[in-house]
Amino acid sequence: MRAAVLLVGDELLAGIVSDLNLAAVARVLARHGVPITEVATTGDDRKAIADAARRLAARSDLLVVTGGLGPTADDVTREALADAAGVSLGIDDAIRTSLEERLRRYRLDSPVAAVRQAGVPTGWDPVENREGSAPGLKGRLGSAEVWVLPGVPREARAMVDSLAAGLPGFGPGRSGERLVATAGLSEVRVATLLDDAGFRPPAGIRLGYLPAPGGVRLRLAAPTGAPDAELDRAAAEVRALLGVSALPGTSLPEGVVEVFRESGRTLATAESCTGGAIGKRITDVPGSSSVYLGGIIAYSNRAKVERLGIASGLLEERGAVSEEVALAMADGARARFGASVAVSVTGIAGPGGGSPDKPVGTIWIGIADERGTSARRSVMPGDRPLVRERTINKALEMAYRRVRELG
Amino acid sequence: MRAAVLLVGDELLAGIVSDLNLAAVARVLARHGVPITEVATTGDDRKAIADAARRLAARSDLLVVTGGLGPTADDVTREALADAAGVSLGIDDAIRTSLEERLRRYRLDSPVAAVRQAGVPTGWDPVENREGSAPGLKGRLGSAEVWVLPGVPREARAMVDSLAAGLPGFGPGRSGERLVATAGLSEVRVATLLDDAGFRPPAGIRLGYLPAPGGVRLRLAAPTGAPDAELDRAAAEVRALLGVSALPGTSLPEGVVEVFRESGRTLATAESCTGGAIGKRITDVPGSSSVYLGGIIAYSNRAKVERLGIASGLLEERGAVSEEVALAMADGARARFGASVAVSVTGIAGPGGGSPDKPVGTIWIGIADERGTSARRSVMPGDRPLVRERTINKALEMAYRRVRELG
Repeated sequence: MRAAVLLVGDELLAGIVSDLNLAAVARVLARHGVPITEVATTGDDRKAIADAARRLAARSDLLVVTGGLGPTADDVTREALADAAGVSLGIDDAIRTSLEERLRRYRLDSPVAAVRQAGVPTGWDPVENREGSAPGLKGRLGSAEVWVLPGVPREARAMVDSLAAGLPGFGPGRSGERLVATAGLSEVRVATLLDDAGFRPPAGIRLGYLPAPGGVRLRLAAPTGAPDAELDRAAAEVRALLGVSALPGTSLPEGVVEVFRESGRTLATAESCTGGAIGKRITDVPGSSSVYLGGIIAYSNRAKVERLGIASGLLEERGAVSEEVALAMADGARARFGASVAVSVTGIAGPGGGSPDKPVGTIWIGIADERGTSARRSVMPGDRPLVRERTINKALEMAYRRVRELG
Repeated sequence: MRAAVLLVGDELLAGIVSDLNLAAVARVLARHGVPITEVATTGDDRKAIADAARRLAARSDLLVVTGGLGPTADDVTREALADAAGVSLGIDDAIRTSLEERLRRYRLDSPVAAVRQAGVPTGWDPVENREGSAPGLKGRLGSAEVWVLPGVPREARAMVDSLAAGLPGFGPGRSGERLVATAGLSEVRVATLLDDAGFRPPAGIRLGYLPAPGGVRLRLAAPTGAPDAELDRAAAEVRALLGVSALPGTSLPEGVVEVFRESGRTLATAESCTGGAIGKRITDVPGSSSVYLGGIIAYSNRAKVERLGIASGLLEERGAVSEEVALAMADGARARFGASVAVSVTGIAGPGGGSPDKPVGTIWIGIADERGTSARRSVMPGDRPLVRERTINKALEMAYRRVRELG
């Protein structure tokens, strides 16, 4: 069984938003052992959608279409799929009534919206949307089954999950794949380490490198379904070869939470230029409350003085972006939260605020623990989002390594 | 001139990561008035890449390919494009030498990596990568020009920016498009408001609705290049019809920063279940330091008591997720940061921690200002990421509306 995906939306072609639905659909289909072999993206253009749907359906067993089911006139996916199937677009009265009721509940009165979203190509079936108003569709184009999902990621995710329940499945979990997250190593460094150690993935298992700002992730995948035990063995071998650079969990924040939990330590943060993003990243991890106590976002200098106890003379003398202030912020957060370890960040994320001495991208990261306090300077290249992203990852990596060292 | 884009990567088809390069390429091409008419995504598969590249090149003037230029064996885009062009893959000695030097600088020694990344299809040109190691490529397939960019978004962005400098341009800015961000209104509500007021976009301008967790955005686009003044007029009319629900700026955080700046007010935050994400979102906005003073991430109960002055009796009696605690958190943050307005959040993001009384998704948002303090309860549907996302947006929207009301 081979699947194709058609992503619909002017906003995708215009670069206003990035698609998140392909990943959601792919994860669900992968669980059922169905690979995606083709993907196309079109705008909200009736002819372009119909053409792409016909082309993809002719080459796959399952075509998943997302987007263009909304209530407004720019949404034409229903019409386009009726065109592709060579049938007319009927109005489903039950859906129309339920949409009208829904609109009334929200004190809206737009019969046009209800009629538009009640459109179903003749011979196709509507699919309930438990997360929003736009019903999905299920039908056929030639020999391919077609699922049509709303463009809103959470709605698409819920609907593809329920539609896929009918597929032959591997059951829950991530059969056929193992991910190993790493920290602090470049892609070439990881590849060199594995090569030098003579590592070769076993037959039938592909090794892929996924570089990301938080660190390279390695993906061991068995497209034709190698036994779980073999994937586990290969992943364990990779972990052993990478040592402390192979993180527990599948991401850097998960790795941080896990090593703190294992070592029975707690964490606090003091953030200036990252503005709470380190705390955000840690608390993305379910269960982080067992290790993360909290933090101070000291964005203004006054907050650094009053909330973290930084001497105002120190701020004046050395500047907010300095080793001394990073050290004092880490100490201040550790004491104030009663944490085992505290991480601090102060820097210039830009676009403004740079100087010849301290250019945009200058970052001090401090870390305080039972053995003392230290700080490290980096000059992060890139624009504001990138400087912040790199700073968050560097701070998380330092916390991770520190706890590994402390044992 | 029409462009097509080919996105390459097993990780995209497997759902491990979502593509961010299409948006980056689209934004750059849009500035030069070049529309993207077709997009395809393939895995790291030599034949699939070559086939897709040939098909897209036959139907466009410019083909942009991203991904598969890395140093490891799973990257085969160079080979595939040589296949598509029907030429051999040569090794560029200058690039090879410079890559070897680069690797040595990082104390790596992998001649294989240097050779792989020095591959250039015969008759094509390498393109300098200022942000990373993988050189890009520039060549032709039939009558189409082809640009090949690395898969890492920041590297792809920098390279497409420099390659596009040779295109005929509209100059910097976002000609041909206006975005109006809104807060607190559903897509149907916005459409109904505009319809009831008799709004119709002028001829040649398309109105699109872009729903997102932070609120619907409206896009007025002139694909065939309507005059700027007409787009401005249409955007101003939409803003006037939507009133306070049309945000200044192009996103909710930008709207918040802007209304605080206009009114001369300052903001502080007290976050429990969002763990710093509200502060992060505000400080994503360049210049937010003029209004945002800082915040307390009070993830543990002890931090709520010691950092925000919540009475521990109150926590025991009413629980951390309660109206009283939300009010006290907002008051505590406002006093501690000396801010005009403080926003607080306490809730149960899940997956654990729910009870029949306070199910997962129960959130209290407090807001303190010169006129007093109030709090509002919501029960957010969805899983942990979604509950948090909705909570962040609700809190930002409340802060925005409060300042609008205060005047």
